[in-house]
Amino acid sequence: MTDRQNRQNRPKKLPALVVQKYGGSSVATSEKIKNVALRIKNRLEAGAPGGSKMAVVVSAMGKTTDGLIALAKEVSPSPPPREMDMLLATGEQVSAALLAMALRDAGVAATSRNAFQLGIETSGDHSNARIQDIDLSLLQRSFQENSVVVITGFQGVTPEGDLTTLGRGGSDTSAVAVAAKAVSAGIDAVCEIYSDVPGIFTCDPNKVPGARKLDYITYEEMLELASLGAKVLHMRSVELARKYGVTLYCASTFSEERGTYVVKELPEWLESPVVTGVTVARNQMKFVVKRIPGDGDVLCGIFHALALAGVNLDMISTAEDGDMSFLTFTALDGDAEAVVNAVSGCMNEKGLTGWAIEPGIPVTKVSAVGDGMNAATGVAGRVFAALRSLEVTIRGISTSDINISVLVDDERADEAVAALAKEFQLTTTDPQYAPLHTARTP
Amino acid sequence: MTDRQNRQNRPKKLPALVVQKYGGSSVATSEKIKNVALRIKNRLEAGAPGGSKMAVVVSAMGKTTDGLIALAKEVSPSPPPREMDMLLATGEQVSAALLAMALRDAGVAATSRNAFQLGIETSGDHSNARIQDIDLSLLQRSFQENSVVVITGFQGVTPEGDLTTLGRGGSDTSAVAVAAKAVSAGIDAVCEIYSDVPGIFTCDPNKVPGARKLDYITYEEMLELASLGAKVLHMRSVELARKYGVTLYCASTFSEERGTYVVKELPEWLESPVVTGVTVARNQMKFVVKRIPGDGDVLCGIFHALALAGVNLDMISTAEDGDMSFLTFTALDGDAEAVVNAVSGCMNEKGLTGWAIEPGIPVTKVSAVGDGMNAATGVAGRVFAALRSLEVTIRGISTSDINISVLVDDERADEAVAALAKEFQLTTTDPQYAPLHTARTP
Repeated sequence: MTDRQNRQNRPKKLPALVVQKYGGSSVATSEKIKNVALRIKNRLEAGAPGGSKMAVVVSAMGKTTDGLIALAKEVSPSPPPREMDMLLATGEQVSAALLAMALRDAGVAATSRNAFQLGIETSGDHSNARIQDIDLSLLQRSFQENSVVVITGFQGVTPEGDLTTLGRGGSDTSAVAVAAKAVSAGIDAVCEIYSDVPGIFTCDPNKVPGARKLDYITYEEMLELASLGAKVLHMRSVELARKYGVTLYCASTFSEERGTYVVKELPEWLESPVVTGVTVARNQMKFVVKRIPGDGDVLCGIFHALALAGVNLDMISTAEDGDMSFLTFTALDGDAEAVVNAVSGCMNEKGLTGWAIEPGIPVTKVSAVGDGMNAATGVAGRVFAALRSLEVTIRGISTSDINISVLVDDERADEAVAALAKEFQLTTTDPQYAPLHTARTP
Repeated sequence: MTDRQNRQNRPKKLPALVVQKYGGSSVATSEKIKNVALRIKNRLEAGAPGGSKMAVVVSAMGKTTDGLIALAKEVSPSPPPREMDMLLATGEQVSAALLAMALRDAGVAATSRNAFQLGIETSGDHSNARIQDIDLSLLQRSFQENSVVVITGFQGVTPEGDLTTLGRGGSDTSAVAVAAKAVSAGIDAVCEIYSDVPGIFTCDPNKVPGARKLDYITYEEMLELASLGAKVLHMRSVELARKYGVTLYCASTFSEERGTYVVKELPEWLESPVVTGVTVARNQMKFVVKRIPGDGDVLCGIFHALALAGVNLDMISTAEDGDMSFLTFTALDGDAEAVVNAVSGCMNEKGLTGWAIEPGIPVTKVSAVGDGMNAATGVAGRVFAALRSLEVTIRGISTSDINISVLVDDERADEAVAALAKEFQLTTTDPQYAPLHTARTP
């Protein structure tokens, strides 16, 4: 065989790929599934960039997963994780099959594929597995006779053939993984995440009147927002998108409204804002451990005891007074008893006296996030000034390159968010409104 | 490597295997699933013959399959069969996972396996696929760490990796196929089918007071009963069991009552009865086509036209009067219009006149079935005498080696069944009661 023939016989490169993901509320009923099918058809007819192939990842219909979990609990108080995954994986298979039916009915050549059929290989951590590979050739083969391949999100298969699930928000991760695998094979792929939320907002639109939807946000900013409690995108999916440079697009299933792009860097024609968004984490509890020896040994012991007790710490800080230290941190309010027990146990074990732990104080964490923060001076000052004008007590503070978080009393949290939104011009109702992340006419 | 080592390294032979199948009504609720788990546990502890491994095949919970079909129809008036199978296969995966959970909870080492995980290979006839192979080594591997493997019934996978379903009663076929595969590999396996029916009866126990449950029935008799409308076992599963010599046992999930064995030959210590059971097929319509040319050409044309119209014929007979013939047959009453149209079309095409078709007469087919029939003389005479004493008109008759069927008017069917049950001593209330198929003390 000549070289030329060899080249001709190579498998064809996949066309540019649009990966879409529809969440549970987008496919909650047969009517909604038919609506999604029409959206996909319209998108195909409008022409996907560089080709006409779409991979559509679906979650289970509406509350299906919750229903299956309840059924499992009826059968066994602590169902084995392997069987739980076997059970839950059916939810996505139902919605994938139904969406493929609706697409066929709308005249679109579509087929459904589950994790076995696409070789979505994961680790064996049942209920929280990580995707390790996707067999792109199987996807490619499915596209030979189909324009649309509907993929069961949230699930994978271990090398031993056991079904796994990826944990909450796992369908986002499935979608980004398909796009990432394509991108790393040199295929131009984008990933669109559709839900009942029309995009990423500067603040929670249910809490802050006039919260603006962003046209663009960077991966870094999105990761901060997700870690601080914003629920539009799952953190793992954003991390994966950042790692492989997959452009994400978040928009509503139920409107044609423009959504938000999650990208590596803002387009050049966008003026970078100092603060992109303000977010809120409730149900926090602040603890102070007083008068402990200032050497690292005791601190180390406390952190170890808390980790063993399964307590996640946040907003950790220390202060010193002579030989003595004060340790401050927050934890989820459900962990209050575990915190006191773990710290007391540690101190007693070391035979220490004279120390004390303040019972937890309920607080809310309010965070301002923005890529522009590390370049701009005086951001912390503006945060404090805005809160001081309200006479809001700041019960703690932490900062990173793109994030300033403060702890405030629960009942003052909404005012604090509003003050920061105003200070950083994040709402459209603000008289100083400037469309910071909103695209100029290109 | 020496021969001796070679032998030692060979995979171990599977232990003797008990295959159980639980139908949809047996696993309809979480409570019922827990009940099934306890039954399996008790069976394991009592000791399965020659070993302690059980394969348990399950159907979808209760009306799950019907619910999924309704959902599909909401999405598409004619869902593609491939997607339908993808959808329906989830039902068995749900019940298999739940039963494995319940077993684990009861302290039994159990795992669920779907069609992908056991290599249940089928033809590609979606919604009516035939099992072509089962990978016994995968089942064997699942038994390494488990006493019980819970298997999704009703489904398989094509060599191309598409999910298929086996049609109504498919879970029976799945169970028998697992046992048959084991038997053909030299493993001693039995297959137990559990449902809400406690066994095979001489007559429909809901219609004939005193209908007796059989201890034994032959494959042949069971096939006749199934083809005549008895619903305890699916015909395909009985055929498969006969082909591979798998002993079947049918009993109730909800009691400890002894069920019925389906076997090749009755045990020697059983006296073979003339008639084993009486069964009934309703919704039949009898047609007579009069005065057609006696040569085979026209008959052939009529049968061809009816086959094209999708009409299933039964009880076909012909009579001759000079050069003219009369053709009699039955069809399902829903096919009445199709029958008249097909026959008329055929006759018009051939340009025939003078013929006529009687509009269908509603009839019921009553059949007496028994392996002993072909050896015993006078059975037909006893059938006619029993019916004549009631003054029941016999509107048609057909016989085979182990079956005599008569057509009677719908409203006389129950009396006809009772008369035959009495004549052939099939009920326990009969003064002449003889326990024909009931075991003597061995």
